[in-house]
Amino acid sequence: MLLQKNEKLIMIGDSITDCERKRPLGEGLFGGIGKGYVSLVDALIQSTYPELGLRIINMGISGNTVRDLKNRWEEDVENLKPDWLSIMIGINDVWRQYDQPTIRESHVYPEEYEATLRELIQRTKPQVKGIVLMTPFYIEPNREDAMRKRMDEYGTIVKRIAEETGCLLVDTQAAFESVLRDIYPATLAWDRVHPSAVGHMVLAKAFLAAVGYEYQ
Amino acid sequence: MLLQKNEKLIMIGDSITDCERKRPLGEGLFGGIGKGYVSLVDALIQSTYPELGLRIINMGISGNTVRDLKNRWEEDVENLKPDWLSIMIGINDVWRQYDQPTIRESHVYPEEYEATLRELIQRTKPQVKGIVLMTPFYIEPNREDAMRKRMDEYGTIVKRIAEETGCLLVDTQAAFESVLRDIYPATLAWDRVHPSAVGHMVLAKAFLAAVGYEYQ
Amino acid sequence: MLLQKNEKLIMIGDSITDCERKRPLGEGLFGGIGKGYVSLVDALIQSTYPELGLRIINMGISGNTVRDLKNRWEEDVENLKPDWLSIMIGINDVWRQYDQPTIRESHVYPEEYEATLRELIQRTKPQVKGIVLMTPFYIEPNREDAMRKRMDEYGTIVKRIAEETGCLLVDTQAAFESVLRDIYPATLAWDRVHPSAVGHMVLAKAFLAAVGYEYQ
Amino acid sequence: MLLQKNEKLIMIGDSITDCERKRPLGEGLFGGIGKGYVSLVDALIQSTYPELGLRIINMGISGNTVRDLKNRWEEDVENLKPDWLSIMIGINDVWRQYDQPTIRESHVYPEEYEATLRELIQRTKPQVKGIVLMTPFYIEPNREDAMRKRMDEYGTIVKRIAEETGCLLVDTQAAFESVLRDIYPATLAWDRVHPSAVGHMVLAKAFLAAVGYEYQ
Amino acid sequence: MLLQKNEKLIMIGDSITDCERKRPLGEGLFGGIGKGYVSLVDALIQSTYPELGLRIINMGISGNTVRDLKNRWEEDVENLKPDWLSIMIGINDVWRQYDQPTIRESHVYPEEYEATLRELIQRTKPQVKGIVLMTPFYIEPNREDAMRKRMDEYGTIVKRIAEETGCLLVDTQAAFESVLRDIYPATLAWDRVHPSAVGHMVLAKAFLAAVGYEYQ
Amino acid sequence: MLLQKNEKLIMIGDSITDCERKRPLGEGLFGGIGKGYVSLVDALIQSTYPELGLRIINMGISGNTVRDLKNRWEEDVENLKPDWLSIMIGINDVWRQYDQPTIRESHVYPEEYEATLRELIQRTKPQVKGIVLMTPFYIEPNREDAMRKRMDEYGTIVKRIAEETGCLLVDTQAAFESVLRDIYPATLAWDRVHPSAVGHMVLAKAFLAAVGYEYQ
Amino acid sequence: MLLQKNEKLIMIGDSITDCERKRPLGEGLFGGIGKGYVSLVDALIQSTYPELGLRIINMGISGNTVRDLKNRWEEDVENLKPDWLSIMIGINDVWRQYDQPTIRESHVYPEEYEATLRELIQRTKPQVKGIVLMTPFYIEPNREDAMRKRMDEYGTIVKRIAEETGCLLVDTQAAFESVLRDIYPATLAWDRVHPSAVGHMVLAKAFLAAVGYEYQ
Amino acid sequence: MLLQKNEKLIMIGDSITDCERKRPLGEGLFGGIGKGYVSLVDALIQSTYPELGLRIINMGISGNTVRDLKNRWEEDVENLKPDWLSIMIGINDVWRQYDQPTIRESHVYPEEYEATLRELIQRTKPQVKGIVLMTPFYIEPNREDAMRKRMDEYGTIVKRIAEETGCLLVDTQAAFESVLRDIYPATLAWDRVHPSAVGHMVLAKAFLAAVGYEYQ
Repeated sequence: MLLQKNEKLIMIGDSITDCERKRPLGEGLFGGIGKGYVSLVDALIQSTYPELGLRIINMGISGNTVRDLKNRWEEDVENLKPDWLSIMIGINDVWRQYDQPTIRESHVYPEEYEATLRELIQRTKPQVKGIVLMTPFYIEPNREDAMRKRMDEYGTIVKRIAEETGCLLVDTQAAFESVLRDIYPATLAWDRVHPSAVGHMVLAKAFLAAVGYEYQ
Repeated sequence: MLLQKNEKLIMIGDSITDCERKRPLGEGLFGGIGKGYVSLVDALIQSTYPELGLRIINMGISGNTVRDLKNRWEEDVENLKPDWLSIMIGINDVWRQYDQPTIRESHVYPEEYEATLRELIQRTKPQVKGIVLMTPFYIEPNREDAMRKRMDEYGTIVKRIAEETGCLLVDTQAAFESVLRDIYPATLAWDRVHPSAVGHMVLAKAFLAAVGYEYQ
Repeated sequence: MLLQKNEKLIMIGDSITDCERKRPLGEGLFGGIGKGYVSLVDALIQSTYPELGLRIINMGISGNTVRDLKNRWEEDVENLKPDWLSIMIGINDVWRQYDQPTIRESHVYPEEYEATLRELIQRTKPQVKGIVLMTPFYIEPNREDAMRKRMDEYGTIVKRIAEETGCLLVDTQAAFESVLRDIYPATLAWDRVHPSAVGHMVLAKAFLAAVGYEYQ
Repeated sequence: MLLQKNEKLIMIGDSITDCERKRPLGEGLFGGIGKGYVSLVDALIQSTYPELGLRIINMGISGNTVRDLKNRWEEDVENLKPDWLSIMIGINDVWRQYDQPTIRESHVYPEEYEATLRELIQRTKPQVKGIVLMTPFYIEPNREDAMRKRMDEYGTIVKRIAEETGCLLVDTQAAFESVLRDIYPATLAWDRVHPSAVGHMVLAKAFLAAVGYEYQ
Repeated sequence: MLLQKNEKLIMIGDSITDCERKRPLGEGLFGGIGKGYVSLVDALIQSTYPELGLRIINMGISGNTVRDLKNRWEEDVENLKPDWLSIMIGINDVWRQYDQPTIRESHVYPEEYEATLRELIQRTKPQVKGIVLMTPFYIEPNREDAMRKRMDEYGTIVKRIAEETGCLLVDTQAAFESVLRDIYPATLAWDRVHPSAVGHMVLAKAFLAAVGYEYQ
Repeated sequence: MLLQKNEKLIMIGDSITDCERKRPLGEGLFGGIGKGYVSLVDALIQSTYPELGLRIINMGISGNTVRDLKNRWEEDVENLKPDWLSIMIGINDVWRQYDQPTIRESHVYPEEYEATLRELIQRTKPQVKGIVLMTPFYIEPNREDAMRKRMDEYGTIVKRIAEETGCLLVDTQAAFESVLRDIYPATLAWDRVHPSAVGHMVLAKAFLAAVGYEYQ
Repeated sequence: MLLQKNEKLIMIGDSITDCERKRPLGEGLFGGIGKGYVSLVDALIQSTYPELGLRIINMGISGNTVRDLKNRWEEDVENLKPDWLSIMIGINDVWRQYDQPTIRESHVYPEEYEATLRELIQRTKPQVKGIVLMTPFYIEPNREDAMRKRMDEYGTIVKRIAEETGCLLVDTQAAFESVLRDIYPATLAWDRVHPSAVGHMVLAKAFLAAVGYEYQ
Repeated sequence: MLLQKNEKLIMIGDSITDCERKRPLGEGLFGGIGKGYVSLVDALIQSTYPELGLRIINMGISGNTVRDLKNRWEEDVENLKPDWLSIMIGINDVWRQYDQPTIRESHVYPEEYEATLRELIQRTKPQVKGIVLMTPFYIEPNREDAMRKRMDEYGTIVKRIAEETGCLLVDTQAAFESVLRDIYPATLAWDRVHPSAVGHMVLAKAFLAAVGYEYQ
């Protein structure tokens, strides 16, 4: 696995990441790391590699867009001096365009999304051992659905940036794709966004595959 | 994996199993399956084998001993007609002897424990495809500790019964052993009994190994 | 309008109808009638025809399927001796097949749905001045979506029964169709089932059109 | 209808307007717009003209008098740059004179009421496409009742200002008048001020008539 | 004063009487007697005649009509063997006709009201030293108001029964009349029914005048 | 009565005065004036002299000593410009010496008590029509009890100041004395300090006698 | 000490004994034994004689009189088969006569008190190794106080019964006497009945002295 | 006993000391001193030496390490001008190394612990009559347990400092040792840190022995 002894991994994002984590830092006893994919990543890693003493901190905040990440980047990422960083952002950037279309100041359109995300990565990449970029997703199998199509655009942006900047990429939409062949979206996420425990496991495994985790 | 398409697995036990599951049946949306190892087993299985449509029901109840299991066996196991059954019981049977030693009617001593567990298994084995017996455990690495020693006795009983009756066996104490080499008990369980998410993952993986689950 | 002076209308259904109505009868001051389309129907009628003194009672119960309606039909419909009756049922009958596919005893398949609904209507039709049958709906514009397709089957059943038994019909799915041309489902209902106030107004207007209401 | 594609309407007032709206802005999912006439106006408009994409924001605050509106006018009206504005204020200005007559600093007498309201309108009229002035009301049919008489004075002031400044006028007292012929005040409002859903629908329809809404 | 040493007075009625009294008996420390006119009657009597050791029990229940009194008469009046009894009932009997006019089964019309009240008094009069009949009231000075007119009809019934059966009479409507000359109803009762502390004092004094209380 | 049309009376003190009054000013609907003797004074006065339109404001704060009154005198008394003022303070000044004898900084000894109270009165007397000084009290009939003896010392100080400065005096201890002949302290106040409704009526009547109130 | 290895002591009484103990049995982890003198007795004994493995169960219930003890004697004492029993009852039997003098059915007068207590002891004495009778008390140093005098009567009854039946006696009133020389009652108990932690320690030591406990 | 008439003792520490004490000062009625060993020390002392009028203040704060004590030393110790001071700190300093090993900034290692504690004592020793130093403890009888071993190191530091600076020493670990011979840790503290009432009594007695308390 890429992560080495005593290293620190920060996972930042929105409500999918947050999942009731502790403030200000999402770590520590009694579920400080939250109840979502970050907790699963931690549990799978610590139970497989207990000797590594890895420190994983959940810095997700519900409702965040990339614009919010930028505002708290110094305090919530840079000051914590991580060795590794994972970012999954963009769902709210898109969703607000579809669930409150008239409230335009809450939308983050593709240009702003791409520019902001690229800026954050370029700024931080030199300070860390690696960054894992996770695409945003929408648990909707119909690729012609308007919001799914839009989400795929944002996913494409993430892939482009990952390639340009040499980040590890996790294609979360693709990860869900395979499960959606057998399971209807309503079972995985009541609103097609917030996953059940099964959906969080799909995310966790996709992340772990990217960092070379070996299950045992 | 041993579990086949559309089969039903019931997992019964005490608070380690329960973990805030829904009543009367521990399944369904919004965390009905609870937040412990049962949920992890479900999430790992469903994300790997979505095509199987397995149904996993959590029937744990906090504070239960094998004496309590017997009282609710008909309603909570037999009437639900499972294809597979897993049982992890015994922690409270032992713990009460150590945390409230003067309240003797709350203790379940080895003879009663063994007789009751064997009876339940003999009664149900013929109706199901398989039973997974999980030993009780104590997250205490010192084998000379009084309560650990006692718990090991109960574990030995479980192993004996598994062998006699042809059940699958999960040695949970052994599973924790390897992690305890690197992690102090207080990190895994504040009271040496109720595991953190990492501890629940240890249990889930031990169970999954017994039923032939292949991670991917 | 079809409803005449001093007549009583009972509107029965599931959570779409219920909307926090009072128990045991959904009527009276301080929102006894609930906060959904039933309240809107009442408010539009009473403000337009205050001289009629109509009595509208909301008898919806969240989570109900047609199987549940049957169980409470005597107490919640017949004993109240309505002049008019409206029924909107079937969403949960279908939804459970898609959001908890493995819990099969919670599903109500088409044969049971059709037989039960027809029985209730045949039993009650002779005692009332009229019955309004409202189709179940799914706020999903993609007709190829598995659950939408299924919901349309149930809608077809409702239409067939309405025709056979001489009930008034409200095609709620069609009513939503026109709005969905301009508004994405996430704006109308976070889970594609429970409507926003706008969605409830769509239902209320569809109902009112069927009973000859004239806005002024 | 007067309101055009993508325009923004702000509706400001007191508790009749507020009705548990979200802060700081009363709009968005999950009832952000409140539960009163503003929500009904929005629901009727959006269901009839979904293609317009209108944005309606509820800025009512319970207990407000025109003095309070003045204090928050810049932040809650001007900075939001509405295309259209509706104002219904004055009930508390009068009510306090009758329910806490000795607490004189809480009263807003006619001169202050008129001067303040006129000032706000003159200040904002040039920046918007139109202003709808709604009279305050008292759900008391007896015109000789002391508080009703007083409220009518304030209504007259509103009519005078509307005429002078070219605002659209909604005579809410007149709207209630017709309903009160058939319904006793206690059914419409337990305290003759806070309307039931029916009372709110009376307000919504009166507003909609003023802006040329056509029901369908 | 009519009440003598160690005698027991029961005061029964609706929410005006109840005022958060203790169950099952409204007496004892920490406000067991409630916070309304019954408490004021008790406080004025006990502070003036501490040597009498009178026992006053509040048996009011919110929402009660005379129909409800009849149902609990044996348990809540007769079994307690009072020396004196006061009754104030009828407000809900009338109010329901005006605040939920369509829910007719909740109305108690004059015939039933008169017959029931007379029956209860004839049944209990022989067992007690005296009964105080208090008229229902409506804090509305306009005698032409529909509900006020109706309430006066019920008051007339109470007066007729008091005269026929030799009960003491308290004309609560007349008691409020004099205060309403100077105070607007909204100051005395937000809904013209539930009095403020001042309104409760009006009731207490009217009661005390009837039983010959002398303030000092 | 001494109080004249439209005058304002402020009643300040400790928890005996406070009794859950509203903040910042203890007046207005829904019990703003609290539930103690101030409310009774208001209710007796308003029901007897409704034409006076008196304004009574409760400014008591639980736990206050005369030291606390001094700290908030400008804001809570002077700025409100009362016509009349009543003060009942001293219970906590004494009580703390007996219920937490070792916490000496919470005690207010006689010298400080007398000097502070005199200063406040001399400062405010010229601005008001009259001041009513109420002695502190202890509902303990045994004059040899240590705390009762101490409280009497403070009462003597109050009497001395009243005489010196020409204030009206209310001897609350004397008022309780007569009731205590027939009623044991535990019935009047569970802790011999906080009165029941009967005890508050004793205080209210003593105050009213001082200002020339005539009951009717 | 009188209590021997593995013996069981039940301590029964009223709120002074209860102190938030667990139901149905007052023992076990997390404060099951309550927070009063019973907990102190247990803590002093277990810390001094850990080798005895004594079991102490708190069976106090707030508000109980000796009449209540009789009603639950079989279930709460006899069925539990104690080796030792302590009883402290009578405070409420007396207190109700003084804090709710008119509610006579709540009083337990001396004859009933003595007869009932004697009956319970005669019934149980033969089945146990010993009974400790604790007098009721009143934290009031003035022996002429009416309630203190009455409490002393009940204490005398307890002493008489203890002597007659050969029970161990704890004179709690005498125990408090010595402390009251230096500490005013309000410091020991806000209502002269419910002791502070210091007061509970006085009770615990008095009990322990009676059973031969030796502090170390 | 060392403590003399009217002296003030401050007891500072972590959650073992805190136990729900009042803020800002842990003293006064209604459990202001908390529910742990400090309350027991106070209750034993006050009941034995009521004439001394000692003042004991609990200044523990849950979760504190010696680093936290240093931050609040001026406000919480020096400004209060105690005559005596007791300190029990170090459990969290050690525990965090074992229950959240990766969160290294929360650990206080031996050098910092020793330096800080010595500094605080040298700074305050000259201002007080005496300081009682209590070792931190771990309720784990196995001296080879990693965390127990570490805690013993910190205990050794405390002993060294006590000797150097002339403080009184309380060896809490030794105090628990004798009880642990007969009682399993789980009975004394569910997490081996937070003691039951029995455990707190062990601490209280150890403290009292150090200050020359004589039980009676």
